[in-house]
Amino acid sequence: MAQYFGGIDVGGTKILTIIMNEDREIVGRSKTKTPVLASGEELVQLMVGELKTALDDAKIKKNLLKSLGATFPGPVDFETGWVKDAPNLGIQSYPLQQALMDALQIPVTLENDVNAGIYGELIAGAARGYQHVVGVYPGTGIGGGIIIDGHLYRGISGGAGEVGHMKVQLEGRLCGCGQRGCLEAMASKTAIAKELVHLAMTGKAQTILEKAGSDISAIKSKHIRQSIEAGEIHVQNVVEKAAYYLGVGLANLVNIFNPQLIVLGGGLIEKLDKWILPIAQQTMRDNAMPSLVQRVEIKVAQLEDDSVALGVAALGKEAANR
Amino acid sequence: MAQYFGGIDVGGTKILTIIMNEDREIVGRSKTKTPVLASGEELVQLMVGELKTALDDAKIKKNLLKSLGATFPGPVDFETGWVKDAPNLGIQSYPLQQALMDALQIPVTLENDVNAGIYGELIAGAARGYQHVVGVYPGTGIGGGIIIDGHLYRGISGGAGEVGHMKVQLEGRLCGCGQRGCLEAMASKTAIAKELVHLAMTGKAQTILEKAGSDISAIKSKHIRQSIEAGEIHVQNVVEKAAYYLGVGLANLVNIFNPQLIVLGGGLIEKLDKWILPIAQQTMRDNAMPSLVQRVEIKVAQLEDDSVALGVAALGKEAANR
Repeated sequence: MAQYFGGIDVGGTKILTIIMNEDREIVGRSKTKTPVLASGEELVQLMVGELKTALDDAKIKKNLLKSLGATFPGPVDFETGWVKDAPNLGIQSYPLQQALMDALQIPVTLENDVNAGIYGELIAGAARGYQHVVGVYPGTGIGGGIIIDGHLYRGISGGAGEVGHMKVQLEGRLCGCGQRGCLEAMASKTAIAKELVHLAMTGKAQTILEKAGSDISAIKSKHIRQSIEAGEIHVQNVVEKAAYYLGVGLANLVNIFNPQLIVLGGGLIEKLDKWILPIAQQTMRDNAMPSLVQRVEIKVAQLEDDSVALGVAALGKEAANR
Repeated sequence: MAQYFGGIDVGGTKILTIIMNEDREIVGRSKTKTPVLASGEELVQLMVGELKTALDDAKIKKNLLKSLGATFPGPVDFETGWVKDAPNLGIQSYPLQQALMDALQIPVTLENDVNAGIYGELIAGAARGYQHVVGVYPGTGIGGGIIIDGHLYRGISGGAGEVGHMKVQLEGRLCGCGQRGCLEAMASKTAIAKELVHLAMTGKAQTILEKAGSDISAIKSKHIRQSIEAGEIHVQNVVEKAAYYLGVGLANLVNIFNPQLIVLGGGLIEKLDKWILPIAQQTMRDNAMPSLVQRVEIKVAQLEDDSVALGVAALGKEAANR
């Protein structure tokens, strides 16, 4: 009897659910908006419903579903399966893993979205066939995921890969984590947006001013692209400086992991690859140990939205089989 | 029939050879000075002789020796088995692995000394029983070794773990690698010695002046200890600042690896642990992600001189069995 495996990517704005077969192909799917101010119970009810919709889409009976993997847009305690602090959803603290297992009567695995995303790239995207891979996702923050010997490396409590909080500048810029000089404080979209607002307010970034005013969180990667394409050179300079910082972070990861492949993904890379990639790559090559950097490739993530749901479905399957 | 495995730690000043049994215990040993200006052929001859002496010490016949692991005090190309650029020895480029295999007719593995040392700590020292471990060895440089799932992680070409060349200060102090701001340029004995010579020359480090004059490479860790114990407060300040930088580097490694254990070793730690450890540890706790740092222990390496030879013997055994 064929077996199937569910993956649900609960993001900040949308919930994507997929059904994966034994060949790790997507055979069914469903998509809905993330609810605002839902309770834990309501979220579980919604997730179970989405799973049913995706099973129907694939014309598969519920009893053939053998496991579920899910991501959550907030901190997860991987040892207890509790989630917390997702203000958009309205959930402060909730035993999501246990509640899903109770509702579905199958093994459930929680994972963070970056780990799931790089694992998705490993099984069906840019990292297919590679053994040692580091994924770096500059967006609002900078997430990271690590593949070692073809497996996701999670560390002792599931928290490995926090590459965004690697300090590259002692006493440098303030980071959202409360520290200073983290890579994320130098090279994330948030770091760029802080500077662009400053430019907008001083008349050097007209496009940004029109699109976002002085609201940092209103600046999207596509606005930054539009601004550069409109010839706003100060904006381009800010992005290129962030690309340089990113390249230093990549050099550190090359020196530490001696990886075969670095996968870059996330909103900034998708929209601004033309300006970020050449500088990040060159800076990485200039700053890493020559014998290590000559062996590393850089690729852009390929799966876009599906990577997280597919990756977490596969991780859920693996965990269920252990 | 019992089997035995050789390990030779070819260091910059001495060569330590051990014979390991199947329980990974040391049953025989030999020690000699590293020759000055030896050719590759002469080094091989010496290593074969040392192995014979260690076998005699253990009263074991040569035909029971199943593998050899060896370290070399210079760069090793792990894919070809060539060693190079060991000016003390006088070797510019030599196929050491193949030459040893030809001479001994058993499998030979080369490894860098830090990787071998942390592996020695894993099988018989501070890291025994741990799964995810990062070893950091501040000395002339800062070496690193990584244990993942109880195995040495070498990366795609054997070069993983270059934690000393992680940049923690953009455009910071000059490093021996030619870059700036590497951890090694901030927290190694060389980094400390550069500052101490300056203090010695300006009358603020009498003990250093007496022991080493203004010669950076003449400053030993024990001189630094003597200076601090003599109340030379500026010297203590330099060491404490280096300990702070080291702590930032450790925080980065905690964020990236989420390890169970960090092992600190090397000459600086052995002689100056009293001043370095509390500050490095506190800085690590202040700078790493709280959820990750609460799970990590720090220990000092336990095996001292034996760790490298024992570790490389065990790695040689593993490679031969693959």
